[in-house]
Amino acid sequence: MKSFFHDNILLEGDSALALYDRVKGLPIIDYHCHLNQADIAADKQFADIGELWLGSDHYKWRAMRLCGVEERYITGKTSFESAGEKRGKARPTTWKERFLKYAEIMPKLFGNPLYYFSHLELKQVFGITKPLSADTAEEIYAEANEKLKTLSVRKLLEKFNVEYIATTDDPIDDLADHGQYGKTTVVPTFRPDEVFSFIPEYIENLGRAAGIKIKTYGDLQDALEKRLDYFISKGCRISDHAFADFPKECSAYCSNTSAAENFERLVKRNSMLHLNSCDIPKLSEDEEEGLRYNLMAKLRQMYQKRGIAIQYHFSVRRNVNIWMWEEIGSNSGFDVMSPECSYANLFSFLPSSGSPSPIILYSLNPGAIAPLANISGAFRNVYIGAAWWFNDSLEGIRKHLSTVAEYAALGTNLGMLTDSRSFLSYSRFDFFRRILCTFVGQKVDAGEYSASDAFKLCEDICYNNIKKLLRI
Amino acid sequence: MKSFFHDNILLEGDSALALYDRVKGLPIIDYHCHLNQADIAADKQFADIGELWLGSDHYKWRAMRLCGVEERYITGKTSFESAGEKRGKARPTTWKERFLKYAEIMPKLFGNPLYYFSHLELKQVFGITKPLSADTAEEIYAEANEKLKTLSVRKLLEKFNVEYIATTDDPIDDLADHGQYGKTTVVPTFRPDEVFSFIPEYIENLGRAAGIKIKTYGDLQDALEKRLDYFISKGCRISDHAFADFPKECSAYCSNTSAAENFERLVKRNSMLHLNSCDIPKLSEDEEEGLRYNLMAKLRQMYQKRGIAIQYHFSVRRNVNIWMWEEIGSNSGFDVMSPECSYANLFSFLPSSGSPSPIILYSLNPGAIAPLANISGAFRNVYIGAAWWFNDSLEGIRKHLSTVAEYAALGTNLGMLTDSRSFLSYSRFDFFRRILCTFVGQKVDAGEYSASDAFKLCEDICYNNIKKLLRI
Amino acid sequence: MKSFFHDNILLEGDSALALYDRVKGLPIIDYHCHLNQADIAADKQFADIGELWLGSDHYKWRAMRLCGVEERYITGKTSFESAGEKRGKARPTTWKERFLKYAEIMPKLFGNPLYYFSHLELKQVFGITKPLSADTAEEIYAEANEKLKTLSVRKLLEKFNVEYIATTDDPIDDLADHGQYGKTTVVPTFRPDEVFSFIPEYIENLGRAAGIKIKTYGDLQDALEKRLDYFISKGCRISDHAFADFPKECSAYCSNTSAAENFERLVKRNSMLHLNSCDIPKLSEDEEEGLRYNLMAKLRQMYQKRGIAIQYHFSVRRNVNIWMWEEIGSNSGFDVMSPECSYANLFSFLPSSGSPSPIILYSLNPGAIAPLANISGAFRNVYIGAAWWFNDSLEGIRKHLSTVAEYAALGTNLGMLTDSRSFLSYSRFDFFRRILCTFVGQKVDAGEYSASDAFKLCEDICYNNIKKLLRI
Repeated sequence: MKSFFHDNILLEGDSALALYDRVKGLPIIDYHCHLNQADIAADKQFADIGELWLGSDHYKWRAMRLCGVEERYITGKTSFESAGEKRGKARPTTWKERFLKYAEIMPKLFGNPLYYFSHLELKQVFGITKPLSADTAEEIYAEANEKLKTLSVRKLLEKFNVEYIATTDDPIDDLADHGQYGKTTVVPTFRPDEVFSFIPEYIENLGRAAGIKIKTYGDLQDALEKRLDYFISKGCRISDHAFADFPKECSAYCSNTSAAENFERLVKRNSMLHLNSCDIPKLSEDEEEGLRYNLMAKLRQMYQKRGIAIQYHFSVRRNVNIWMWEEIGSNSGFDVMSPECSYANLFSFLPSSGSPSPIILYSLNPGAIAPLANISGAFRNVYIGAAWWFNDSLEGIRKHLSTVAEYAALGTNLGMLTDSRSFLSYSRFDFFRRILCTFVGQKVDAGEYSASDAFKLCEDICYNNIKKLLRI
Repeated sequence: MKSFFHDNILLEGDSALALYDRVKGLPIIDYHCHLNQADIAADKQFADIGELWLGSDHYKWRAMRLCGVEERYITGKTSFESAGEKRGKARPTTWKERFLKYAEIMPKLFGNPLYYFSHLELKQVFGITKPLSADTAEEIYAEANEKLKTLSVRKLLEKFNVEYIATTDDPIDDLADHGQYGKTTVVPTFRPDEVFSFIPEYIENLGRAAGIKIKTYGDLQDALEKRLDYFISKGCRISDHAFADFPKECSAYCSNTSAAENFERLVKRNSMLHLNSCDIPKLSEDEEEGLRYNLMAKLRQMYQKRGIAIQYHFSVRRNVNIWMWEEIGSNSGFDVMSPECSYANLFSFLPSSGSPSPIILYSLNPGAIAPLANISGAFRNVYIGAAWWFNDSLEGIRKHLSTVAEYAALGTNLGMLTDSRSFLSYSRFDFFRRILCTFVGQKVDAGEYSASDAFKLCEDICYNNIKKLLRI
Repeated sequence: MKSFFHDNILLEGDSALALYDRVKGLPIIDYHCHLNQADIAADKQFADIGELWLGSDHYKWRAMRLCGVEERYITGKTSFESAGEKRGKARPTTWKERFLKYAEIMPKLFGNPLYYFSHLELKQVFGITKPLSADTAEEIYAEANEKLKTLSVRKLLEKFNVEYIATTDDPIDDLADHGQYGKTTVVPTFRPDEVFSFIPEYIENLGRAAGIKIKTYGDLQDALEKRLDYFISKGCRISDHAFADFPKECSAYCSNTSAAENFERLVKRNSMLHLNSCDIPKLSEDEEEGLRYNLMAKLRQMYQKRGIAIQYHFSVRRNVNIWMWEEIGSNSGFDVMSPECSYANLFSFLPSSGSPSPIILYSLNPGAIAPLANISGAFRNVYIGAAWWFNDSLEGIRKHLSTVAEYAALGTNLGMLTDSRSFLSYSRFDFFRRILCTFVGQKVDAGEYSASDAFKLCEDICYNNIKKLLRI
């Protein structure tokens, strides 16, 4: 039995060890995350590992709910009547109490990404290699908080050798804090998801940010284009769209004329919804899809013109537990994968003439990786993104690498990203590199892959490929 | 090469051996099966392993058909014109002949659950460790039948240390034989699938059982509630529903009023179907789904009020081979997985206010385990049941455990069940425990999981979790 | 570390080595491929490994595009404006240049079937065991071309011990070159996909080939039946259909009358499409599906009457990259898997009365193998074909075998085929046999399968089963 979270964890075979030795120190390019650039600018410090781990990480919240922890130890909400709780009676909980509850469920998370992430963070950031559990919780809590006094955001970035961070930003966001911090370049990602809600207040704010009064569909496009150029001036090289499914191409409703009419009608209708009477009829499903299709295509053209790469995140269904969502709100752990994906829509949306921008596809459905990797082989510009969200487990990443290797070309893979809100998450790059080195090393050991090509392959995946794609 | 079905079969690594040593003797809680309580009450004996194995096990029948065995050696039906058979010509076959045919195909079942189950039963019940094949069939047949003389249902239950059995019962079933037998508690499960056929004779029988003349939808609910209470008085703690897919929530048809009207119309129509003329129009698909949705929701409320857990078995399509089904009948091996599942329907059906009953989801589609495990993370009361039916293979169970670990929390898993009609099936618990111990032990050996937490984890999965959920 | 592509590659464990030793020399039955019988008749020779590998293998073309190789090094097309290329400017490329480009990307194809296939071919045909890469490309190119001088199609067939080849042929094709060549029997497969386009020119050609003037739907069936009998006279034992999805059974449109009317209407309409006005309305989707359903059922009856086996290849979407397809044409690497499959249609299409022909199902969607293997258990005549096209990777084949073993019966499996246009592809049988021997051998080593039954199992899968099914 090897010791708990020993130095060579996840590395199997001689070649894996040798490869890891060479890739472990490569700089990190985190081209998709939800870090707050203001925290970097302020070089924020943290006082409590409870707050740091449980303050906003709804991945951990889900795990706690799965294990029956009361809601007041999770989001701190006390009004929700979960098992054994009386509505409105419970006293608030402290970060320490929440940390202890999380520690208590840790043994139940065998094989879960959180088990790996939490222990890797404890080891790599805090120097702690004890298994976290009810027994060790008090001691680890004290030890970690002591260590926290010596840390700050920029010290973490330096420690993990983070070269490049692309945060995720709304077109109306201010980008004043993006820039260079030590050896770390912090740039924005253009993610215009809110536009697709067509809420008048948002459209107005967008117009204000762009210095354009948005009345027509043309105005909307001008405003988006202006903001995109502002993003680019701040170093933006990549955009992002998230949605449940690709829109249907229905010729009658995807035209510019139809989209323009329906945009204006929809904004007008939405602005009247608070009135008692609104005589503008709802958009039909086809009209809505047509508008969405047209605007997505228009944005793709803007990106393409400027060489901006595109990310599409899909097959996710938000807030499925409506009762909990009403109590606790969005981004609280009630989003799930939705395997329903219209490949017909995808096939009609993907093709593009000219020199198309790189498109990176992420499906939350692990069953979609084989089809999508296969589809990427029919389009020069289409890539498969990292194992996304719930799929970034040990087996999830292994299977992802294996699927990309079999159905596309592993050597063009873009490697890891955190998709995280936490500065501790950079240990996930180490997690990925170990898995990759074992995946590659085992075939080298078996005589199934050229030993002399293996390091270059791993280096490309960990570092060179994404650098080249983003032209950085 | 290790010897055939040696004592440590399926156990890999030191930790697996150590863990197995501690869990192998845990009592069995079989919370979902199709055993006949009357056989327990009568302490039934068996004379022939051919009858015992092939009398009603349509899982084995399928395998025999897959391997080209003539139907008269399977169900004994002689009229069906399968390969080489003349209709109506063949003489009846004996249990011994059937057993010999099954033995003959055994080598073709490499890796199949039946290969493991059959050999585990031979070893653990009959003390036989030879591979079953045409060569050994006669000898094993004689040896097993000799051994059978010393066995009975209750001796088997004692041998396997079965603590708790939940049989599967219709609301109209008599439950006189449920009760305590030695150390084994035998309780019913409330499975009202037949109600959803809305066949007048069934409704009448249900009313008779409940002492209520069912005329209205309200009467139906009262009758079901009365029967549910009777089930509970006999120890019932869990219900079960099986269907192809979750019903659609279509507000216009899911209302109480609509459901009540459509229930009465449907029963009335069904009662007139044998007449030459029936002027009551068929229910539309939406009306049918609405009625089904409403009744399922009503039953869920009844369960919830009484703390009764719920099982939903879905993604199965019955009797797809209509020609064979017409000849041979239902439950004969013509049911298959149907991967089409409406996640949209599931998302609208699952949420429930108040303190919802535990819901245990079983999909026959192995591709659905990741989405469902993921969805369970958004609902405190939702669990993923054991690898169901065709999925209870070695790889199926391994993959199931791995998926639950990655997408939910393995430590809350409810372990194994037999879903079986045979008292020999309890060796499947041993099969599961070995797979579990290897799955957990390998991560302990690799330093990826805390050695000191491993036994508690396995014990919870094998025994404690289901006991707690069923409050037994 | 074992040496690169050593003799025991892909073989793990003592039993695997022993099994492989016994199956490696079994004759090859390639019951589905796209070889050109004229090349066999002419005993064609090859001058250049560049042409041999890259002349028409769109599997390799995809890989080159995935790795960013310019189109002129792939199909030689120079007008397409891909990354860095100017339209119409580039000079033509030589086979050597293309080979060098393919060699260059080889290290990026880690784990890809092409990596295995290319290196197995280099080893087994050319005696080269160096890893192919930019560094070794010149040297391997020269060495391979030198070796090619000593080879010819028939020498390759002899070397690989190919006993039986079923090519893929259109009903209108001439079959003059099919026959016996040395120890190799070359027979046609009846694949009437083009009929389903209902293009008047094709229908006319079909009529000409059959000596029947096709005016009615009845004429069409007569012509097909005559050609089928001609195929059978040339040794044909198997048919093949490829399509995106099974047709819907819609009673109103699947009848003979409806199909006959719609056939005549469709052919007439198609013959007028070049005119400026065509007053024959398009077939509705239901009418089209009904016609397709009826014709597929009619063909199935013809096959069944003659004991001809049937292959159905589905879940493929052709030419999804419409821009590239317009430039470069069909069968150029723009086909992908399309996971959408209507199981409801499949369930209504599969059942057949009487003594049905064997049906072999191939889905391009790897997620469909479990459902289809499971479905095969409900139909005596349904088999799962080999891991098809993009699924013939190491993991793809392993998973395929494992899934068939768990959900059907491995011992009835029909083994490997090439589905290839290249005479070098016979090394894929060796690839498959190694994977199979390891898959079986590991369970023997672990005591989970009878050692004495293992060789027969492997031999049946590699050779006996398909021979029996095709009655050869």
